[in-house]
Amino acid sequence: MLNSTKIRITTSTPYNIIICQNSLEQVGYAVKEVLESDKIAILTDDKVNNLYGKRVMESLSRSGFKCYKFVIKNGESSKNMETLISFINFLATNKITRNDAVLALGGGVVGDIAGFAAAIFLRGIKYIQVPTTLLAAVDSSVGGKTAVDISAGKNLVGAFHQPSLVYCDISTLDTLEPNVLRDGFAEVIKYGIIMDNRLFQQLYEPPVKHLKEIITRCVEIKRDVVNADEFDKGARQLLNFGHTVGHAVELLSNFSISHGSAVAIGMVRAAKIGALYGLKNFTQSITHILEQYDFNLSCPYNADQIFSAALSDKKCAGDNITLVLPEEIGKCELYKIPISRLKKLLKDTEI
Amino acid sequence: MLNSTKIRITTSTPYNIIICQNSLEQVGYAVKEVLESDKIAILTDDKVNNLYGKRVMESLSRSGFKCYKFVIKNGESSKNMETLISFINFLATNKITRNDAVLALGGGVVGDIAGFAAAIFLRGIKYIQVPTTLLAAVDSSVGGKTAVDISAGKNLVGAFHQPSLVYCDISTLDTLEPNVLRDGFAEVIKYGIIMDNRLFQQLYEPPVKHLKEIITRCVEIKRDVVNADEFDKGARQLLNFGHTVGHAVELLSNFSISHGSAVAIGMVRAAKIGALYGLKNFTQSITHILEQYDFNLSCPYNADQIFSAALSDKKCAGDNITLVLPEEIGKCELYKIPISRLKKLLKDTEI
Repeated sequence: MLNSTKIRITTSTPYNIIICQNSLEQVGYAVKEVLESDKIAILTDDKVNNLYGKRVMESLSRSGFKCYKFVIKNGESSKNMETLISFINFLATNKITRNDAVLALGGGVVGDIAGFAAAIFLRGIKYIQVPTTLLAAVDSSVGGKTAVDISAGKNLVGAFHQPSLVYCDISTLDTLEPNVLRDGFAEVIKYGIIMDNRLFQQLYEPPVKHLKEIITRCVEIKRDVVNADEFDKGARQLLNFGHTVGHAVELLSNFSISHGSAVAIGMVRAAKIGALYGLKNFTQSITHILEQYDFNLSCPYNADQIFSAALSDKKCAGDNITLVLPEEIGKCELYKIPISRLKKLLKDTEI
Repeated sequence: MLNSTKIRITTSTPYNIIICQNSLEQVGYAVKEVLESDKIAILTDDKVNNLYGKRVMESLSRSGFKCYKFVIKNGESSKNMETLISFINFLATNKITRNDAVLALGGGVVGDIAGFAAAIFLRGIKYIQVPTTLLAAVDSSVGGKTAVDISAGKNLVGAFHQPSLVYCDISTLDTLEPNVLRDGFAEVIKYGIIMDNRLFQQLYEPPVKHLKEIITRCVEIKRDVVNADEFDKGARQLLNFGHTVGHAVELLSNFSISHGSAVAIGMVRAAKIGALYGLKNFTQSITHILEQYDFNLSCPYNADQIFSAALSDKKCAGDNITLVLPEEIGKCELYKIPISRLKKLLKDTEI
């Protein structure tokens, strides 16, 4: 694989992330190294399938795999129980067994559904992530969080289930539409804010150079966080920076506001809340960097709406909620606050 | 709790099984010891709710728990994705958080759905088993296997998720209908065949005396097996004795043949297959003991039907299937055979 970088995740079941370029034709070899069986069920969406479906299938076939492909509609609206059940019935119908595997070819939606299906089908089979969006490459494909949305909220049903391999060919990002690429940059910028001031500075004046290096750095940060806290009991919650308000905005918009755009709005709000909470005020620099990437930062929902939507979030526990707030650019911390206080903080940062 | 016995399971998350009598009023105390939160969502079925719902709710309330109850229809036909999704929406609507818990009050169906819901809601919350059938007491409530059925087969979707407590008041078994009690005896007899000749002998001439001792012995056997192999990679598969054909029969009957009755048919068939495979022939003694408990052992499906239905079973892996066959009464072993051979073995044991 051309210029490939390998990053090792040492969770309960360890695995490699391969970051490469122009190497989609070689995904079969990489998969062969982690699977004993020769049967794979591919989950992908219509857009990605048109672009890369054939090349991936051919590569897997050349490596001796018998492939079954299930194509869903592109977009967050597919990430629901109905799609999950359809895919699981597809696995059963094609007699996928405990030795076989699922392969997710696509963005975060495809990866989350495929991973969750693999987590619960026959009480757990292997799966492989082949991310084709920036967001999936730096975030959702790594770390084993899988989920689908239900009407009550985003990602409310899911499992921790680590993939056996993440194969990220960054050439697939070349075909991304600008708004989808932007979505990923929300998470990339987030890594800078929570963990790496240098990364933040590199991103401060786009266009971004050395995308492969930047992706690699993001995956390294995610690796460190996930290795330290696989099951999201502590440090991993840092990755939720901007996500409490972000998930609420996404939900309130019925997913017409994308994940990245919603997280961008959430990061600005978190910066404001941090300042109100007595921390240093990073609202200006965070707003500035996000504007450079053309994020629309105006929040179309009032504090009451956001508060109600945020209550259904997984980050609530008992009467408290954990917020991630910036102490520096490059250093965020967790703050457990009473839910009642969140309401006031949201109100007081409304404008 | 009157005459209570405590058995410790030392899986990845350890927990106790309390076996007691006439102590349903004290379930609240026991739950209080394992939960920090004060919110519990109870899953039960209409029959069990009429008998024990009020007593359990009152006991939990006295211990300070705020309870939310969700009642499903009694019977295996409830064990599907639709019921699961309804219950999960109920959890979300009532703002159950990661600190709260689910409590399963009922038999295996209720326990399997509640446990699976707890496994995937918010990527996993705690749950407690309060089994009220013999089958749930000796088998399904212990060991963390959770699942629901899909059209393609039984328990094809599920998770390993250990409960935080199993509270088994055997007085609840007094109200069981004879056929439901019989269902449990299929599993009790199974424990004798796979692991404990003495237990088999105790059961050989009903009526059974010392039911509490017998249940305790079964739970001890299950404990040993589960402690040795939590994730069903090896030894735990011994518990599947009679279940390959059993699950197929259940599925073919569209669940009109109960689990226990189907497993009884499956155990006789496994004995016949064992003999054909060159092992000692225990068909007669296994048939005899099951007849003592009034099991109908005639199998209404032919070998081809059973073979097709068995192929969708989780016990298949690649081109092989693992069968559990008796070498002695009290000692079974795993035999991995090609799926094609299973077809012939089923054919040759058809009568």
